[in-house]
Amino acid sequence: MSNLQDARFMALALSLGRRGLGRVWPNPSVGCVIVKDGVIVGRARTADGGRPHAETIALAQAGAAAKGATVYVTLEPCAHHGKTPPCADALSNAGVARVVVAMGDPHPRVSGRGLAMLRAAGITVDCGVLEDQARRDQAGFLMTQAEARPFVTLKLAGTLDGRIATASGESQWITGPAARRCVHMMRASHDAVMVGAGTARADDPSLTVRGLGITKQPVRVVVSRNMKMAQTAKLAQTADQVPLWLCHGPDADVAGLTGQGAVSVPCALDGPQVDLRDVLANLTARGITRVFCEGGGMMAASLLHADLVDELVVFSAGMVIGAEGTPALAALGVARLDAAPRFVLDSVHSVGPDICHRWRRNF
Amino acid sequence: MSNLQDARFMALALSLGRRGLGRVWPNPSVGCVIVKDGVIVGRARTADGGRPHAETIALAQAGAAAKGATVYVTLEPCAHHGKTPPCADALSNAGVARVVVAMGDPHPRVSGRGLAMLRAAGITVDCGVLEDQARRDQAGFLMTQAEARPFVTLKLAGTLDGRIATASGESQWITGPAARRCVHMMRASHDAVMVGAGTARADDPSLTVRGLGITKQPVRVVVSRNMKMAQTAKLAQTADQVPLWLCHGPDADVAGLTGQGAVSVPCALDGPQVDLRDVLANLTARGITRVFCEGGGMMAASLLHADLVDELVVFSAGMVIGAEGTPALAALGVARLDAAPRFVLDSVHSVGPDICHRWRRNF
Repeated sequence: MSNLQDARFMALALSLGRRGLGRVWPNPSVGCVIVKDGVIVGRARTADGGRPHAETIALAQAGAAAKGATVYVTLEPCAHHGKTPPCADALSNAGVARVVVAMGDPHPRVSGRGLAMLRAAGITVDCGVLEDQARRDQAGFLMTQAEARPFVTLKLAGTLDGRIATASGESQWITGPAARRCVHMMRASHDAVMVGAGTARADDPSLTVRGLGITKQPVRVVVSRNMKMAQTAKLAQTADQVPLWLCHGPDADVAGLTGQGAVSVPCALDGPQVDLRDVLANLTARGITRVFCEGGGMMAASLLHADLVDELVVFSAGMVIGAEGTPALAALGVARLDAAPRFVLDSVHSVGPDICHRWRRNF
Repeated sequence: MSNLQDARFMALALSLGRRGLGRVWPNPSVGCVIVKDGVIVGRARTADGGRPHAETIALAQAGAAAKGATVYVTLEPCAHHGKTPPCADALSNAGVARVVVAMGDPHPRVSGRGLAMLRAAGITVDCGVLEDQARRDQAGFLMTQAEARPFVTLKLAGTLDGRIATASGESQWITGPAARRCVHMMRASHDAVMVGAGTARADDPSLTVRGLGITKQPVRVVVSRNMKMAQTAKLAQTADQVPLWLCHGPDADVAGLTGQGAVSVPCALDGPQVDLRDVLANLTARGITRVFCEGGGMMAASLLHADLVDELVVFSAGMVIGAEGTPALAALGVARLDAAPRFVLDSVHSVGPDICHRWRRNF
């Protein structure tokens, strides 16, 4: 089969895998396409919650047609007996002829052994097809492996001069409905949505995904040393329906909130504030691979200062507020320009009357 | 001739006219294309400095071929005897058969009389082809007619959080070489480049167009009540080569600077500051139709506060500085969000590693 056809089927598998982002944690979101004689006989992604794996679902769809087929899978099939038998065994048992893999799985329990098992079974294995795109899609999973923390996307939404509210605190609405809808789509593609306590108090957000028919909501995470959130806050009121995790310091009293259904996540301090590295480590320990941070300015500045922002998504509205307005970012402690955090442009486009520009960490 | 062909030739005439922006003041930049039997026999724009007019040049190119030809011109031909005979006469003397005009000239000395003269000479006249684009291109000329001030483009170049310098004042370079080249192109398409005295002092800019082979430089305008500019400043040092106009209050002493070649433009005060409306009125009185303001934050805020910004050009670099940095805009006095100046997106694209987004006044 030609490289071009391999790339086409892998692109389809990748697009399937991307649909699972935000829904399959703690597992990576994998896409799988099975092709027999040029016809697609199975296509799947990792199921919500992480199981069954994509290969299992796609093989079930293919049935007997899997024999002699080519399987496109976006991540190396698993090799270990966990809660399910290894996918590598399932593929060889089904009698597939060839497996095309986008990227190897760096997880210590896999790490090349999935590919080796397939080859040992006489299956032709090709690895590295559309690997760059696969690595981008797996950024969360890879970050948990490499740095034991989730991939962090920071959203800034403000005016052309970088303000998120007037001096009097008025902030609704700076960006338009299309941008807000886009934010809901971004929330849905992350395992968790995170804000600081100041934003939780000032905006009383619910941080849920609305209007998109999403059934699996991302975890809402609030970070605050003292966690003085009112039990009447929307976040608290909905804690029994949508997960609410409270990342707080050792001296916070969260009994009332946990009584409403919130989960207490005690975190270490770094000076007077909650240590964001510990927050992220705790989230990864609980399975979170992708975090969408929506501010406020203090939280955003702390994440940037600690070099914990992997992607920066900026929504800019065609409006100016001037220097009295609340800045999108609090003080960063940047004295010299060459010490300022820098990002590389990923994409820019208009969203309704606003623009959305996405920037990636400058590796 | 079909509407499509009319539009194609008019688009060409408009593109010719746009090339003259920033070079033909105090006149409008007009483009003209003469077509005989489907062949272009003349094409021109208003010459640098505003004379000869586009029609005159194009008719000279066409010579005898103008007889029976169709003329595409982006602005109604002039009807008055000024320093040159009226273009409407020249067209009818040349025996052209048809004149297609993008838009009428609102100038009191023309205002429909050019079209009337052509029709009276038996020439077929069609007006309004690509008029929207023509009106955009003529925004400077139209603004001088309608409001006796130039069209004002405000440039903001900063970080993703709207900062233009670190707390220590470091600002070179936030945006990259491609953005700076783009700024030089924008300077060249305006009649004047304007800054406040703070920027003139802090950055010691020359404000010239460099690297583009431009022979006619825009006028450099500095606005300052007291005009305490050092005679060693680059602006002052080059005042004998490139026009430097000083818009100052009644109590400024500019004798040293005018001795170096700068032009004194006394302006009224508005409270403690120079009145920007008077500055702009004075510029128009001296022939300026398009002003490119490059800051700084105080000047930008004053223009926005006075509702004098027609186009906002923002360059955003993939960098953050944080709240200690110098804001792109000083205080605006915006208390409520619905009082914030708003703009409509015109275009957005990447420029080297940065993005450029252009916004138009929300009419």
